[in-house]
Amino acid sequence: MEIPSKLLETAVDELATLPGVGKRSALRYALHLLASTDSDFAAFVGALTRLKSESHYCSRCHSISDTPVCHICSSPKRNQKIICVVENIQEVMAIENTAQYNGLYHVLGGVISPLDGIGINDLTIRQLVERIPAEGTEEVILALPTTMEGDTTNIYIDRQLRQFPNLKITTIARGIAIGDNLEYADEITLGRSIVNRIPFNKD
Amino acid sequence: MEIPSKLLETAVDELATLPGVGKRSALRYALHLLASTDSDFAAFVGALTRLKSESHYCSRCHSISDTPVCHICSSPKRNQKIICVVENIQEVMAIENTAQYNGLYHVLGGVISPLDGIGINDLTIRQLVERIPAEGTEEVILALPTTMEGDTTNIYIDRQLRQFPNLKITTIARGIAIGDNLEYADEITLGRSIVNRIPFNKD
Repeated sequence: MEIPSKLLETAVDELATLPGVGKRSALRYALHLLASTDSDFAAFVGALTRLKSESHYCSRCHSISDTPVCHICSSPKRNQKIICVVENIQEVMAIENTAQYNGLYHVLGGVISPLDGIGINDLTIRQLVERIPAEGTEEVILALPTTMEGDTTNIYIDRQLRQFPNLKITTIARGIAIGDNLEYADEITLGRSIVNRIPFNKD
Repeated sequence: MEIPSKLLETAVDELATLPGVGKRSALRYALHLLASTDSDFAAFVGALTRLKSESHYCSRCHSISDTPVCHICSSPKRNQKIICVVENIQEVMAIENTAQYNGLYHVLGGVISPLDGIGINDLTIRQLVERIPAEGTEEVILALPTTMEGDTTNIYIDRQLRQFPNLKITTIARGIAIGDNLEYADEITLGRSIVNRIPFNKD
């Protein structure tokens, strides 16, 4: 589809860089912004610009925060001895949403992925290792994605953390999702769920 | 899902005002922008701001254009005596994409919709009426959506254009889409396609 204006085309190209947005959606977004009032447009651009320029990362867990230390890390109600390691801020929000976890987090900012040019120094692994003695952490829960990159990162972090002999290192349970039918489960998940079976009535 | 930062929440709320974007997609977009480099972010915001502040509408057809008169209106290859009336710029692009139309356009900027607060004076109907004698237009094709609002707008425009006795007023053909199966067509479309049947071999 030919776009009749260079300005519009450039805006569409930029909007299409957002994750999962194609040219057709980007065009709808661009025309919506073009038709919006000046004050609505200013509010839109202003919110994005302030997010980019003013938002902080928590100095402990590296999650996004409006304060130097986030409300989870600074909460006296949370168990300060457990750290759950996640890839991104979305996972913090997803786990918080379950209301099943009461410890702290550590946001890596990605997983080791040489193909995408993400190495160890692009992630907050060093900062994680430093937190263990500083905070007297007793358990680290690895909650990275079950991909090759996630597994690689798990192995690397596990090696780094072995220097703390009393630290418990765990990973979240993998298995058949609640409500899922066994016959439709993929064989790797089903196989693992049998190998890692748990006592009945445990949870 | 609780968002741990007011700045992020405001940005998500603004991104969720884009058409068809929910909170979850808006969050992905916001975190993508937050993680982008400063120069990528500047290019993104810059493209949107320039679109909003610098783009023009063609003084004849009111489509978006980088020049005072758009490349369609100023093309000597186009039939200057036919005007196709459409709701938005998207429809201009969709019709251009077919390569089946060689006349000019007129972009209304919407359809009459009292519920959405869109009245006659919010659209470019007056400008359309002024074009007819000024350009010696011979035919106006109404290509508005087949909705109640589109039909209302068609009727209103038709009344305004009756003052020109030699002007031909047509509308695009409605019927069964090419490749569609009759049994799955909605009954209104199928009914209309029988009432408005055309001589075989006509096209």
